[in-house]
Amino acid sequence: MNPLLIIKILSFLIIIVSSFMTIPAGIALYHGEFHSFHAFAFTISVVILIAVTILILLRHKKVEILTTRDGFLLVTFSWISASIIGALPFYISGAIPSYTDAFFETVSGFTTTGASILTDIESLPRSLLFWRSLTHWLGGMGIVVLAVAILPMMGIGGLQLIRAEAPGPTVDRISPRITKTAKTLWLLYIGFTILETLLLMIGGMDLFDSLSHTFGTLATGGFSTKNASVGHYNSAYIDGVITVFMLIAGINFSLHYRLLTGRFKPLIRDTELKAFLFIFIASTTLIALSLYGTTYQTIGECVRFASFQAASILTTTGFATADYEQWVPFAHTILFILMFVGGCSGSTGGGIKVVRLVILLKQALNEMKLLIHPRGVFALKISGNMVKKNIVYAVMGFFFLYIMILLTVTFVIAFDGHDITTSFTTALATLGNIGPGFAKVGPTKNYAFYESYIKWVLSIAMIVGRLELYTVLVICMPHFWKR
Amino acid sequence: MNPLLIIKILSFLIIIVSSFMTIPAGIALYHGEFHSFHAFAFTISVVILIAVTILILLRHKKVEILTTRDGFLLVTFSWISASIIGALPFYISGAIPSYTDAFFETVSGFTTTGASILTDIESLPRSLLFWRSLTHWLGGMGIVVLAVAILPMMGIGGLQLIRAEAPGPTVDRISPRITKTAKTLWLLYIGFTILETLLLMIGGMDLFDSLSHTFGTLATGGFSTKNASVGHYNSAYIDGVITVFMLIAGINFSLHYRLLTGRFKPLIRDTELKAFLFIFIASTTLIALSLYGTTYQTIGECVRFASFQAASILTTTGFATADYEQWVPFAHTILFILMFVGGCSGSTGGGIKVVRLVILLKQALNEMKLLIHPRGVFALKISGNMVKKNIVYAVMGFFFLYIMILLTVTFVIAFDGHDITTSFTTALATLGNIGPGFAKVGPTKNYAFYESYIKWVLSIAMIVGRLELYTVLVICMPHFWKR
Repeated sequence: MNPLLIIKILSFLIIIVSSFMTIPAGIALYHGEFHSFHAFAFTISVVILIAVTILILLRHKKVEILTTRDGFLLVTFSWISASIIGALPFYISGAIPSYTDAFFETVSGFTTTGASILTDIESLPRSLLFWRSLTHWLGGMGIVVLAVAILPMMGIGGLQLIRAEAPGPTVDRISPRITKTAKTLWLLYIGFTILETLLLMIGGMDLFDSLSHTFGTLATGGFSTKNASVGHYNSAYIDGVITVFMLIAGINFSLHYRLLTGRFKPLIRDTELKAFLFIFIASTTLIALSLYGTTYQTIGECVRFASFQAASILTTTGFATADYEQWVPFAHTILFILMFVGGCSGSTGGGIKVVRLVILLKQALNEMKLLIHPRGVFALKISGNMVKKNIVYAVMGFFFLYIMILLTVTFVIAFDGHDITTSFTTALATLGNIGPGFAKVGPTKNYAFYESYIKWVLSIAMIVGRLELYTVLVICMPHFWKR
Repeated sequence: MNPLLIIKILSFLIIIVSSFMTIPAGIALYHGEFHSFHAFAFTISVVILIAVTILILLRHKKVEILTTRDGFLLVTFSWISASIIGALPFYISGAIPSYTDAFFETVSGFTTTGASILTDIESLPRSLLFWRSLTHWLGGMGIVVLAVAILPMMGIGGLQLIRAEAPGPTVDRISPRITKTAKTLWLLYIGFTILETLLLMIGGMDLFDSLSHTFGTLATGGFSTKNASVGHYNSAYIDGVITVFMLIAGINFSLHYRLLTGRFKPLIRDTELKAFLFIFIASTTLIALSLYGTTYQTIGECVRFASFQAASILTTTGFATADYEQWVPFAHTILFILMFVGGCSGSTGGGIKVVRLVILLKQALNEMKLLIHPRGVFALKISGNMVKKNIVYAVMGFFFLYIMILLTVTFVIAFDGHDITTSFTTALATLGNIGPGFAKVGPTKNYAFYESYIKWVLSIAMIVGRLELYTVLVICMPHFWKR
């Protein structure tokens, strides 16, 4: 392990995060939000001062290769340190008086969860609202991927980072060199950002709101600048645009890249994409049918609200255009089941991820075939490729751990006296990086009422979920620290 | 496949089930319950007449060896046919006017679930109450195991049956010959039955209630003869006896056999037993602490009610001495989490089973060690023995299927307009063969209100859960029917 090297990279990362604060700082100055401006200015100067000092002190240390173990530590601590620093402007400006709350909100931002402790979002200064949405955007594509595109300039290869960030089954390499990959993904992300912002502005949103909502969409985050979330605009056009972009953000970005370069074949062959779209269409249809004649009277409205909410929960965004708790119980249950699914691998979505569920389903079917033909050999294919046994093992381990952590977090929340529905869906909504749940954490409610210690536990759950469980859990094993 | 042989064995099995009906028929006669007596007499005579005719017609057919596939069919259809016939007395006597309800109640009996459609249990004739409890007892140890002890007289080996009944990781053979094993287990079961009945009678219960509650306890079923379940007696002694016997019934019966023959070492080494007792003690402690000062005022009362309910849910019995929905939410959540666990393998308990969860946990930890040391080899041991990879695979597949079926059943129930808590815990309580859940299926409520089609789905869920998923699901695969 190279602790000095990790500190060095983290310092660099922190400088990047702080640099992004200059945008909301500018907004604060423009709108005369002096409390916020001072908070940003103070945070930026202090953090950069400390980070630069560290970098100068460590500049003569020999640059070593990052080990796999360093990768786990680095990824975990980049999310933690970014959140610690990102929370400062909220706290220092006095907009969020408790640091626990500020930290929770920032973790929720960087992990693209979208769970909020704000009871009145619109009362927050615009600069802080922008920073809040920007944490989504930065977190979404991954501070790590960002760093991967820059780290090579420091002469450090970053393969271990990607591996630690996504131990999932398909770290699909668009181009052989990791740096190029990161840059390609980043450009694609910026491209989508510009496109969605423009489309939202055409729909009548101002630049500020368009950008903020775009950040929330593409990161599958869910922070809105309005108390009523996207429902505030009550526009079928805006709902449609955001629905489409939520789905785009929930699809593996390497598929987008291939589509842009004219390669359609991988899309048609992609098992995960087909499953993802099937789940979306099926759940939209079921919800729309259940809403017809009960909540909405026209087919158009049913499809509009059903597709928005299905996309929002499936991709783990968490935006709302309606209080789905007022819908019929059957619609609740569809959304509840979608909370277990999540986006595609290589997307900004959270949850268990579609490809894992497909692998598990195919494996379960193979297991049954094996019972019928005990000496048979049954291959497991995804997108036409054989999936190796050790990957199936890792996926199964992931699924079990996911359910275990879900029940553990439920347990901790219930310990404070909350009912099962609240406890269970809070755990599901934070671990899966979704945002809203049911009962006390329903779509029109927030996380403000929780005790401080629960907010810390939920912050950990969001980070654990975002980093695909293993990355963080591995560090907690005594085995990790043995030589 | 040998359809004729399967029909032959099923006919034999049906004769056994009908023979047991002579006991409640006798009770009906003694108490002058003529409607019930006629129902029993009619069922017994018609069923035995048909079954004997089939056996005579098929007597000259060549006796062939049962294949594995036959085993799956036979096990599944023994539960189904026993339930179809077992439901007749309820229906014919008019005590349960709907055959759907009667079938549900009988499936719930034979699968040792204990979910009831009766709104007033005590209004049922005594003979039918006894038959209801007897279905638990017969189902508990397994009509199949029973048949296994008798089938060899027909010259048919039964290894495939045991294999189909318990594809779980430990089909622990007490004695090398399968027939002897079945007989040993059966004697042990009868021994425990006599012991518990005597202990309950000492506590002031009459013979009828003692026997009925013993059947419900040892089968981890949960049918009571009283509307208030075991809470009716309001006796710390009876609660204690039933708690102990629920735990006994939730432990692998081969361990009991070893204990009786003076072999203590396997018990101390047994990973599953240790985990089972740990879960029981931990959850009892947590529930007791949460009840102290809120629901009960003395430590004794807290321990008494907490241990009873923890044992009842953990072992999937489903008896109640208190309305646990009136307890603090934290106690709910502990019980909710216990609903995922279940008894030990080789017990009469349902659920996922403790040994599977232990294997999954150890596998998940190994997976993390592998991330730290990618070239390491990490063994998975249970009770000191290596667990083979293919067993780990089967267990993982089981866990995934369990969660999938859980969500599917939840979906079907919610489709009819029931809330998430009701839908989800109904699915959990039927698939896990527990009985009571939360909300509309809480401990003081029943399943009467469900639509007919939901009762059929739940009946299937109970059978699927009881037969460890694979046994039934395999039959539903097109692969199964190919040559």
